[in-house]
Formats: sequence, C-alpha cells, structure tokens
Amino acid sequence: MKVGNVYDFKVEPQDVDFTLRSRLTAVCGNLLNVAGQDAHRNGFGTVAVMRDNNSWVLSRMAIEFDYMPNQYDDYKIRTWIVDSGRVISVRNFVITNGNDEPLGRATSQWCMINLSTRRPSDLTPVLESCRQYIFDEPAPCEAPRKLGAVETETAVEHRIVYSDIDFNRHVNTLRYIEMMVDALPIEVVAEPHKIRLDLHFVKESIYGQTLTIGYRCEEDKWLFEIKDNDGAVICRASFEIR
Amino acid sequence: MKVGNVYDFKVEPQDVDFTLRSRLTAVCGNLLNVAGQDAHRNGFGTVAVMRDNNSWVLSRMAIEFDYMPNQYDDYKIRTWIVDSGRVISVRNFVITNGNDEPLGRATSQWCMINLSTRRPSDLTPVLESCRQYIFDEPAPCEAPRKLGAVETETAVEHRIVYSDIDFNRHVNTLRYIEMMVDALPIEVVAEPHKIRLDLHFVKESIYGQTLTIGYRCEEDKWLFEIKDNDGAVICRASFEIR
Repeated sequence: MKVGNVYDFKVEPQDVDFTLRSRLTAVCGNLLNVAGQDAHRNGFGTVAVMRDNNSWVLSRMAIEFDYMPNQYDDYKIRTWIVDSGRVISVRNFVITNGNDEPLGRATSQWCMINLSTRRPSDLTPVLESCRQYIFDEPAPCEAPRKLGAVETETAVEHRIVYSDIDFNRHVNTLRYIEMMVDALPIEVVAEPHKIRLDLHFVKESIYGQTLTIGYRCEEDKWLFEIKDNDGAVICRASFEIR
Repeated sequence: MKVGNVYDFKVEPQDVDFTLRSRLTAVCGNLLNVAGQDAHRNGFGTVAVMRDNNSWVLSRMAIEFDYMPNQYDDYKIRTWIVDSGRVISVRNFVITNGNDEPLGRATSQWCMINLSTRRPSDLTPVLESCRQYIFDEPAPCEAPRKLGAVETETAVEHRIVYSDIDFNRHVNTLRYIEMMVDALPIEVVAEPHKIRLDLHFVKESIYGQTLTIGYRCEEDKWLFEIKDNDGAVICRASFEIR
C-alpha cells in the first residue's frame, strides 16, 4: 500500500502557457497547496499551529519534472511526511500522470516559526501529536542540494507588491519561483525539458522592499540569488534544465 | 428556477491576503475560469471554436463586490449567456455566499477573433448551435461603463514576462487586473470596501513589450490606462471603491 494522501488535479486552461503545456509554477503551486491542505487535514496545519502563535515556513525544497503535463491532462500528487528532527519537518511528494506513471517528484523541509520572535519553534509536540501520519518511505529524489553564494552576471529588479505577499505577510514561495522563471530566456522555459529545481530560503522579504533577482548560467544550470535592498540574501536557487 | 450553471468554490489559503480575506484577483480569476469552463461544457469553448481558427477574447467587463469572502468560506458562481449580437456575446455572473446571499455580480462582453487575422468573427453560427443555453435573465449589474482617455498622474512600468501570457500568446486578463490592483495603495486594496470594477480592453499586448500602467484618483474612483511601449492604449479601467 502506498503511504500518505493523494490529491487529484487537472491541467486547466489557466494553468497552461502558449505551448498548451502546464506552467512549471502551476504544478509547483499545487505542490505547495497540497502541503498546506494535507497538514490541515492531519491536524497540524497553519490554523492549528497558529493557536500557539506559530506558523509553517518553507526552508528548502527540491522539485523534479520529467515533463510538464498537457492541457486537460489529469495528474495526482501523493504526499507524506517522514520522521526528521526537532527543527525540520520533511514532506515528500510524487506526481503521477493519468496512467499512474511518475512525471515528477519533490521533497521539502519546513520549519515552524514563532510569529512574535520570527525564530524556529521546537517541533516535538506537533510531531508527537501526529505519529500516525509519519511514514518511513524515503524521499523520491535527492534532498535539496547545498547552494553557495552566486556570482551573478545579470539581474532584474522587482518591487514587492500586494499580490506577492501571503497570509504570513511575507513574499509567497510561488512568487519567488515565478520571478526566477520569468528571468529565464522564454525558450528555455517553454520548451520540453527535464527540470530539477533546488530552492533554499534564507530570510523573509516583505511589502515595500525591492528585490534584486541575480543569476548566472553554468552549463545546464541556472543559478539564482535574490537579495533585498539592504543586500541581504533572501533565497538561492538552481534550475537544472536538460 | 435559476438559469445557467452553478460552480462551487472555497476560499483557499493561497487565495487570501494578510487580512485573511480573499484577494479580489482570486475571485476574478474564478469568474474568468468559470466563463471558460461553462463555454467548454456547453460546446462553444476555446477548444471548439479553435477548430475554425477562432478564439474568445474578453472585450469589456464590469464586476461588483459587496465584500470579499474570508478564508475557508464557500461561495458559488452562477453564470449564463444572453442573446446579444453578431459580434458580442454577453455572459453574466452572480456570486453568492454559503447562505445563498449575493456578495457580488458581474457582466462581460466577449468577441470571437480569427486567429490569423486577429479580427472579430461573426458569432451567428456559434450562437445558433447553442440556443438552449441562452437565457433572457438580464445582467445583475449595470453594463460596463464607457471609459474615456485618462489624464494619468502616476505611472509604473511593467515588462511583459512569460507568466503574464496565456494560451492566446497575449497578456492574460487577470494579469492586467493584478497590475492595477498592485498599483493601488495597499490600504485601499486590503481594507473592506464595496468595489465596482469596469474593464475595457482595446488592444492585445504581447511578450517583449513594456507596459505603462498610468492612473489617477478622482474622489472614490481610481482610473487606469495601460499603454504599450508605442503609446497605444491596451486597456482602461475604473475601480470605484466605497
């Protein structure tokens, strides 16, 4: 029996680009939504942890796509959490097509932060209360890779706007992915490729700041570093595109 | 009996802003998605009209909200089309809350364009084939108002990126609404208000162009005019916020 819960999706017209394949960000958005929904369903979602003045924050994530599904294709996301530690909760994902064949996979590392101090909280009480939802099936892909400082060659600026920020009052993960995807040459994004995306969040960014999205290309890797207007690193990412 | 079809929604965490109410753009996105879905279901959607090398394009729209629903609230969108003419198809919407009380309404005018000439096609054959889906219930709100040229006072620039463009290869309606919402002062957007939005599309804009989103405030109205880098008007809008 396969562990975890399964969520059904269809590639809707609003999800596709001009090639009529799903945008990377549409499926990534559903991975993130499923993480929230599944935690909520199992009793440790944002609403539940907010009672103790905590919130979930994504720390690192790796996402792999063998290909992007086409308009009106069905796909499923199966997700489960594994035993990790006092500071990091690991959630895994497998994405399968209408024939139950994998088309992508992901693994993510989450922290719980105290909303007053913005510092990590101890996960032990939360994880104790949801033992039955923790499985030992390992991650379906390599863990998020270490991402060092990037000597960026090109940069675009982005003023943080209302639509970028979420209920946590900081820029939403999906928006960072979108900023980076939109910095890539359109032919790299829209042509069929195998993609592995590694994300590493360092610091929150908030309304009113202006971000600099710097990047460089090294062989088949696009390395990104996003900084705020004080020069602090907000996040790093690598898009491996084959 | 109420005419048209009804679609169910819930305000998901990804739809809300930091006030935990739905973003305007989340519900507007669902109005546009419902228009597409409902046309598809009734046999005259984008896929069907593309067989004759046509596509649907939104020309004008008026949207009213009494208030924005809260996170996890259920809401319904009822939609139907009315008899109009050879060039314009009118689609109406009523948005109701979990108690079946209206919280918003909209009316929209669509053209079918030929994908080669980008000129309007005659709607008569399409409308003849779907007589049974045309109802005489009038629009639930005032038709889209005439919007004249705007003497803009303030402007922000937006370079059109990959994520802005849709299957039609032009900037997606929702993205224009988002650009304008993000130009408004955040306290105007995020505080509870009654809102009426009038949209008037003049010309397509495409990948590679840079848009100028100009606006001015006149009493309770924010008037917008978006132009491309040749100075051509792309769309006009009015946000009446009370």
